[in-house]
Amino acid sequence: MTSESSFIETLRRFVTAEAARGLLDDAAVLTPPLGRDLVLTKDLIAEGIHYLRDDPPGDVAWKLLAVNLSDLAAKGARPVGVLLGYVLGEESWDSAFVAGLERALRHFDVPLLGGDTVSGAGARVLSLTAIGEAARPVPDRRGAQAGDALWVTGTIGDAGAGLRIARGELKGPRRLLKRYRLPMPRLAEGQALAPHVHAMADISDGLLIDASRMAAASGLGVEIDLDAVPLSPEFADLIGSDRAARLFAATCGDDYELLFAAPPDDRIDELGLKLPLRRIGSFKPGSGVLAYDKKGEITLPERLGYVHGD
Amino acid sequence: MTSESSFIETLRRFVTAEAARGLLDDAAVLTPPLGRDLVLTKDLIAEGIHYLRDDPPGDVAWKLLAVNLSDLAAKGARPVGVLLGYVLGEESWDSAFVAGLERALRHFDVPLLGGDTVSGAGARVLSLTAIGEAARPVPDRRGAQAGDALWVTGTIGDAGAGLRIARGELKGPRRLLKRYRLPMPRLAEGQALAPHVHAMADISDGLLIDASRMAAASGLGVEIDLDAVPLSPEFADLIGSDRAARLFAATCGDDYELLFAAPPDDRIDELGLKLPLRRIGSFKPGSGVLAYDKKGEITLPERLGYVHGD
Repeated sequence: MTSESSFIETLRRFVTAEAARGLLDDAAVLTPPLGRDLVLTKDLIAEGIHYLRDDPPGDVAWKLLAVNLSDLAAKGARPVGVLLGYVLGEESWDSAFVAGLERALRHFDVPLLGGDTVSGAGARVLSLTAIGEAARPVPDRRGAQAGDALWVTGTIGDAGAGLRIARGELKGPRRLLKRYRLPMPRLAEGQALAPHVHAMADISDGLLIDASRMAAASGLGVEIDLDAVPLSPEFADLIGSDRAARLFAATCGDDYELLFAAPPDDRIDELGLKLPLRRIGSFKPGSGVLAYDKKGEITLPERLGYVHGD
Repeated sequence: MTSESSFIETLRRFVTAEAARGLLDDAAVLTPPLGRDLVLTKDLIAEGIHYLRDDPPGDVAWKLLAVNLSDLAAKGARPVGVLLGYVLGEESWDSAFVAGLERALRHFDVPLLGGDTVSGAGARVLSLTAIGEAARPVPDRRGAQAGDALWVTGTIGDAGAGLRIARGELKGPRRLLKRYRLPMPRLAEGQALAPHVHAMADISDGLLIDASRMAAASGLGVEIDLDAVPLSPEFADLIGSDRAARLFAATCGDDYELLFAAPPDDRIDELGLKLPLRRIGSFKPGSGVLAYDKKGEITLPERLGYVHGD
């Protein structure tokens, strides 16, 4: 069992931000950016729920960071720092986690500012708080307008296919597994898109459910062309591209792509982003989500995505 | 088992801060205070470690909030908001927790800004992130200077006595039990003291260990007059006021009083605070903690306080 003091000593080796106060103080102290808003998010991940017991600990650290940074990305924010809430356990797992956390923090150039550890607790529930700064107005999930187009970044469904590979249900390429284990927050895209969108969110639970939440929060309905949902070649090879495959992609979750509403005449695809953008639907007066493809309207499954705790 | 959606609906009933975005967005968005620094802290509490299984859930909510606000108090910060990380369980416990959280947030006039819940995890590890704003320079644990006096607010040892009552080891007054279950962060005192101190921290693990940490972080030693450590009449009645009782008070932890270093000639006791302040020692060149009383130097126990995970 790792002790708190040795765990914190290990963290101190790579914690250099002045705001972290050498991890020796009660709190982190940050001078806020002038003329920008602060964006605060806190996501938990639990063993057996958000990650599998056999997942490499370094990948779990990456995921904990990435899912939080994805929330910042959806607000067009630049990460400023994170606070870690960690449950100590076996030493080998803990040290692999810290090594992975250090790598992930370096990759995204985000400083660890502080946090807390606890030992002797049962199951692992890890938490992270991420702080970012963003230009005003900061995109809201609630801002979609009737007539807006619905867009997504990247490709959808890869992580869902990757989870099936991780579980041993399918054999498939590493790239899909990697999209499940090492999600990539769309930080650059979020910052570039923010001034152009009416609403933005990330896709964590599933395209359909996250789109329906954006519509509901905006007091609207949304129509989605399932044929327009972007699939990767690897996904199409492994799962297919027919209606069933597309419904799986649109409901499996863990994509961490951005979903956003923009005026229909905005040439959002001409922003020159590295990641492809795809227009997949539109917002309408009313409520609910309606999906269709070239064969017509689709009767949606009861579960539009991964609904935690139901 | 409470579902995430019903839990969040319950929270939404009392969440009104604009920054919380109705708990409908991916993140909270806050306009930072002009000319002030931000103070960020994150403390976890775990069942069986930081609270007892039989503790009333509303008191656990209070404690989770109070221990975090105590860290803000030690930085002279005014609370701006909190993010909650919650592990769902039995409905009756969860609803009592939320009711207690609402009361505690109202008491301290702190808005809930967001957070995350997880269900289906084993043991409860609850986390809170508190955000505050403070005038510059924000007191640091590392700032004590040789010759500074060491001070404490309030009385020491009450919570330790209260824990013994909670465990059924002693019978004693409600006030002591309350100091264990419902600690009171010294927010007003922290803000008033901040401009006068060289270093400040809260006492969570024990007076002696927290004083020795302040000394070590400042590159100094500290001498403490155990006879000067302020005891409440209730503590003195129940535990006593001899050397053994005072050593217990100085090492039991959970006090959540403020510990601070101030220039020896500063008339800190004339600030007109409601809470009594007591000068109990001084910082010296060197290292380590030395305690004495009228009978002379005291051989300190190996444990200077509650050291987690050892």
